[in-house]
Amino acid sequence: MIQNYENYRKHMAKVADINYSCAMLGWDQETYMPEGASDLRSRQLSTLSGLAHQLFTDAAFGDLLATLKDDTSLSAAEKSNVLNTIDDYKKQTCLSTDFVEAMSKAISQSFNAWQKARQDNNFKLFAPHLKEIIALKKEETSRKGYTNVYDGMLDTHEKGLTIQKLDALFSDVREQLVPFIKKIAASKQVDDAFMFKQYPSDLQWQYSLDVLKHIGFDFNTGRQDKSTHPFTTSFGSADVRVTTRISEHDLSEIIWSTIHEGGHALYEQGLPVSEYGLPASEAAGLGLHESQSRLWENNVGRSLPFWENQFSKLLNVFPAQLSGVSTDDFYRGMNKVQPSFIRTSADELTYHLHIMIRYEIEKAMVFDEVSVEDLPALWNSKYKSYLGIDVPDDKTGILQDVHWSHGSLGYFPTYSVGSFYAAQFFAAATHQIPALKTTIAEGNCHPLLTWLRENIHQYGRRFTSEELCKKICGEGLNFSHFMKYATEKYTYIYSL
Amino acid sequence: MIQNYENYRKHMAKVADINYSCAMLGWDQETYMPEGASDLRSRQLSTLSGLAHQLFTDAAFGDLLATLKDDTSLSAAEKSNVLNTIDDYKKQTCLSTDFVEAMSKAISQSFNAWQKARQDNNFKLFAPHLKEIIALKKEETSRKGYTNVYDGMLDTHEKGLTIQKLDALFSDVREQLVPFIKKIAASKQVDDAFMFKQYPSDLQWQYSLDVLKHIGFDFNTGRQDKSTHPFTTSFGSADVRVTTRISEHDLSEIIWSTIHEGGHALYEQGLPVSEYGLPASEAAGLGLHESQSRLWENNVGRSLPFWENQFSKLLNVFPAQLSGVSTDDFYRGMNKVQPSFIRTSADELTYHLHIMIRYEIEKAMVFDEVSVEDLPALWNSKYKSYLGIDVPDDKTGILQDVHWSHGSLGYFPTYSVGSFYAAQFFAAATHQIPALKTTIAEGNCHPLLTWLRENIHQYGRRFTSEELCKKICGEGLNFSHFMKYATEKYTYIYSL
Repeated sequence: MIQNYENYRKHMAKVADINYSCAMLGWDQETYMPEGASDLRSRQLSTLSGLAHQLFTDAAFGDLLATLKDDTSLSAAEKSNVLNTIDDYKKQTCLSTDFVEAMSKAISQSFNAWQKARQDNNFKLFAPHLKEIIALKKEETSRKGYTNVYDGMLDTHEKGLTIQKLDALFSDVREQLVPFIKKIAASKQVDDAFMFKQYPSDLQWQYSLDVLKHIGFDFNTGRQDKSTHPFTTSFGSADVRVTTRISEHDLSEIIWSTIHEGGHALYEQGLPVSEYGLPASEAAGLGLHESQSRLWENNVGRSLPFWENQFSKLLNVFPAQLSGVSTDDFYRGMNKVQPSFIRTSADELTYHLHIMIRYEIEKAMVFDEVSVEDLPALWNSKYKSYLGIDVPDDKTGILQDVHWSHGSLGYFPTYSVGSFYAAQFFAAATHQIPALKTTIAEGNCHPLLTWLRENIHQYGRRFTSEELCKKICGEGLNFSHFMKYATEKYTYIYSL
Repeated sequence: MIQNYENYRKHMAKVADINYSCAMLGWDQETYMPEGASDLRSRQLSTLSGLAHQLFTDAAFGDLLATLKDDTSLSAAEKSNVLNTIDDYKKQTCLSTDFVEAMSKAISQSFNAWQKARQDNNFKLFAPHLKEIIALKKEETSRKGYTNVYDGMLDTHEKGLTIQKLDALFSDVREQLVPFIKKIAASKQVDDAFMFKQYPSDLQWQYSLDVLKHIGFDFNTGRQDKSTHPFTTSFGSADVRVTTRISEHDLSEIIWSTIHEGGHALYEQGLPVSEYGLPASEAAGLGLHESQSRLWENNVGRSLPFWENQFSKLLNVFPAQLSGVSTDDFYRGMNKVQPSFIRTSADELTYHLHIMIRYEIEKAMVFDEVSVEDLPALWNSKYKSYLGIDVPDDKTGILQDVHWSHGSLGYFPTYSVGSFYAAQFFAAATHQIPALKTTIAEGNCHPLLTWLRENIHQYGRRFTSEELCKKICGEGLNFSHFMKYATEKYTYIYSL
């Protein structure tokens, strides 16, 4: 019996070796790969994905899983690994290796096309690839046995997430958050001009490394690089990599992208090394993953206590640029609420309108309610109606995000879900560690990280996001925590 | 019949996808990987190597090769691919997948141990790994069917190379080169003090990129990074990467390491993309590979014509450091001949004594004539007797090279073989293109690169090094070309 579980573990580790090698090739593709290598990389990624799939869906491995399902000698943690794997196995065996290879190749090509389209500000270069991606993803989701394809796409990214739940959540957003944003818009605007001075790249880079270290990122098992679109990737919890981007005329870009990706990375570095390749070493879901990045980015990184400690350090690096700016000025400025074009640099309130737009567009895309050619127009009209702004071009509009080019449909909503979880978790942590904000203000992020490691990171996929939330907070996802956090914070900042 | 060849090609491309992914993981391991990831990387590399081996040695593929062997419809180029693959297949099928995985893991661990040993200047940390590597490599070579294991190791790196040939070659070195080096040592030394001023890293780095471009390196299908030990790697000819290292107090380090690796890279970039995964897209052998790096490093990069064009550019970058130095001073200084500890920074004459020492030690290691523990003493005694110098410590001695940690036994001799080929090829090119040196002096390296592409690069493994040499020069490897080149050059430099 023990031998069975050991064989299962070994097989899973081998599959992980290939999948993490894919991740390595993907990391390089977005950081260092020379442009002329893109076709080559596509085919190599495709072969590796196919091999991982082939190995994972091996019939003998299926038999082993069936045996383990009824193995009463397994511990609860082992049982959870096996059940999660059986779930994955069922979904993967619906896909042929040919299909997986074709998908991988289409994604690599689509990513390259998106990069080119974005650079040339020309959606048409990307459109045929997006069409192919939508078709392949729909086919994949149907094959996996989902009757509602978009529900299936959501479930793939965050187990249990559905259109029904999201419609309810975004209805709360519309009813509570939208009026609050309007109230802010009607009040006196805060000043953030100091963010847009000339900030030399190398100094920004150095500060971003310091901040990563400050929040607890372990450089012995990770590193930071640069890429067009910041991301976090892992080749196992002993090698977790983040990327960031620098704008010489916008300090906020690097600070919050680094802290955001850093939050993702702390989760990955906190997953148990001993469970390598098993569900227990994987994230519970993308919504939960995002809760970790948002918690650090917003609840910590955009909080007054954090900057009570960090601002003097930042001032040391940029004394001229920040001359005359107080910690409170900095805090207010960084939290300026204002409709804008780019999701990743949006404030934490209007951010959810960006997501709502993408959610609505994805549903329309997947259910064939709009043709791919008409997407830029639909995008622009929604930005006009929800955010009141005129999108000037595709680069600033529909081409801004990498996700669709990666085949990630049903991914965006996890960003809002994650933010709402973040507020809920941070409230729970503050309740359980009364001195939490004081320690952060003293420059000590360790108690928070320890709390996250104990309550969330250590479990991997053993519990779903919803289960974890109930375990920690005694209730499932509840939007009111986010609204409470937002109301208190912005009432102070905007003197409402 | 055509279908058979097409299936063969597809299978080979898939194997190449995995092998090149291994190369990517290896590249990262030596450039960017965080230290704590080394065990993780070892296991991932081991799994991928095992998979590549398993796929390549597949029995059905063996049957396909047997069918293709007798296929009279194949072109000569196709036939050559098939025969080379059959040769590889025979050698690989002697090794089990378990053995290949064990070897890969041992190599990764040994590489990490070597890095640590070198850093701590402590050979003992590396010794047990080296022992394991020697044992595994001997086993591998025996399994491949070689009766003389060291001949087998040589043949693996450069087809047809044997102890007998090398003994003859190094006898020429002893009889002709050693007395010539003594003659130089007895004459007035040239001045190279200007090389050891303070040269800022970032300026060196920028110049090294310019030099790479100047010799014809294509940055659209390649890049340069930094590593402890400079190397060239390829993930297919559309993605070829070199690394270099910078010493702030020694300008020569980066210039010749960049040109050297650049020469390797030009060969890799010149291999036919259309033959991806097939022997025709692989280098003919390591001796021939080295001929390409040495030709650019020495016959071009340490020549007067090259610097007649480049020196003014270098002077522009470092006006203070090179103030008062003429092109001729620079030429003489860079070619200073002097016994030294480090192989990679040795002059092009004493270099071959470094190789002779390694050749003798490897034979002793492989034939159990010396224990691993006694290697540092043996190393140091040979440096004393051949180069007349006292090695101060292991870091400067036996731990300086990465090769053994990588399992590369029988590799070093290809460096001398390559240098001798380089002199022979450059003489042939100069004969066939009478204006060659003039074009180089005018800053145009294109005619030389074109000649190399046409005469060498395009063929891959279609011909062995020896066959190519005969095709180009009408004779096999002939040491006299190197001696002629060395005599003319150093008679001028040292006014002999």
